[in-house]
Amino acid sequence: VQIAVLLYDRVTALDAIGPYEILSRLPGASLVFVGASAGPVRTDTGRLTLVAEASWDEVPAPDLVLVPGSPAAPTAPGELQDWLRSVDESTTWTASVCTGSLALAAAGLLTGRRATSHWLALPRLADFGAVPVSSRVVVDGKYATAAGVSAGLDLALDLAARIAGVEVAQTIQLAIEYDPEPPFSAGSPRTAPPAIVAALRARRHLVLDA
Amino acid sequence: VQIAVLLYDRVTALDAIGPYEILSRLPGASLVFVGASAGPVRTDTGRLTLVAEASWDEVPAPDLVLVPGSPAAPTAPGELQDWLRSVDESTTWTASVCTGSLALAAAGLLTGRRATSHWLALPRLADFGAVPVSSRVVVDGKYATAAGVSAGLDLALDLAARIAGVEVAQTIQLAIEYDPEPPFSAGSPRTAPPAIVAALRARRHLVLDA
Repeated sequence: VQIAVLLYDRVTALDAIGPYEILSRLPGASLVFVGASAGPVRTDTGRLTLVAEASWDEVPAPDLVLVPGSPAAPTAPGELQDWLRSVDESTTWTASVCTGSLALAAAGLLTGRRATSHWLALPRLADFGAVPVSSRVVVDGKYATAAGVSAGLDLALDLAARIAGVEVAQTIQLAIEYDPEPPFSAGSPRTAPPAIVAALRARRHLVLDA
Repeated sequence: VQIAVLLYDRVTALDAIGPYEILSRLPGASLVFVGASAGPVRTDTGRLTLVAEASWDEVPAPDLVLVPGSPAAPTAPGELQDWLRSVDESTTWTASVCTGSLALAAAGLLTGRRATSHWLALPRLADFGAVPVSSRVVVDGKYATAAGVSAGLDLALDLAARIAGVEVAQTIQLAIEYDPEPPFSAGSPRTAPPAIVAALRARRHLVLDA
């Protein structure tokens, strides 16, 4: 199983690293971080550089492609969108975290498909022809999309079970001790205090450029 | 608030990136990844390279230092241990994720302190003079330690609230949509199927070298 995790300028690190920490532990899996070219990629905070091991062109047929999100998800036509369409022709799974689903949808891969995204970006999925669903993880055919940032962990465990079986997924979950205990119930607009939801809506540029 | 996140050879990426994704969003905070020298650092899977922005020597007095874990946490005497002891003299918070607590304990910083670690490594804390506590996050004075890998998210939200207030922490939690829904209840030895716990104990080299 070859797994390609996309990196691009201003990617949100946890969107990529959460799934990586799970999917890279699948027995027999080979995970590779890909970018426009091999080399350093700056993340959205300006505080972290990740390294792409290969260029898109060097990874033409991954079994699983995962597109992490960003405040500026790559939705414009171009080489990246071309690559996404090309690899999607032969993937077993095409996946995204957070606003990565906007990139998949803009490439025409989610047309008429149920999909999710960061809660602030969810309505935009419809602009690109997808059917927005407010769920942590949405699987429609071979298209698996996750909600914002940290939801990539839940998506990756779901995919790990589908690829390698429930016991393998549970073993990885135990290895990374994923037994979450958030100290607050503020992780979703459904559970966060209304004032917090309103404040973040007003400062949505922190999460999304537009 | 200057936050230093330590990187070293074979670090577990999510141990560092989970807290980074939260702490880097604290208003007014400056987060820096530090290593033995500035430059690339290979993670434990061999599939990912992170980049240290500065050397330890360049960051002599962070307000918060965070030590992520690894299958080979740095517990041997040397420059890293010296730096940890030195910065600890002036930190407001000294923190760790996963087996990072073994490094803190080996540096003598957790002697007689309550602390936690990856569940497979917890007993080893006592070898270094700390008092092992089986909890997701343990705070004893200024020493904040987290359980395995993914527990760094819970630790960082806890610290964010202590540093900047509950509302700031909740806003960050909502921004990264940390509303976890693991598809299985296997994240802790208390909840995982006994066969899964036994299997991982038998293959503990996947998590810990020794």
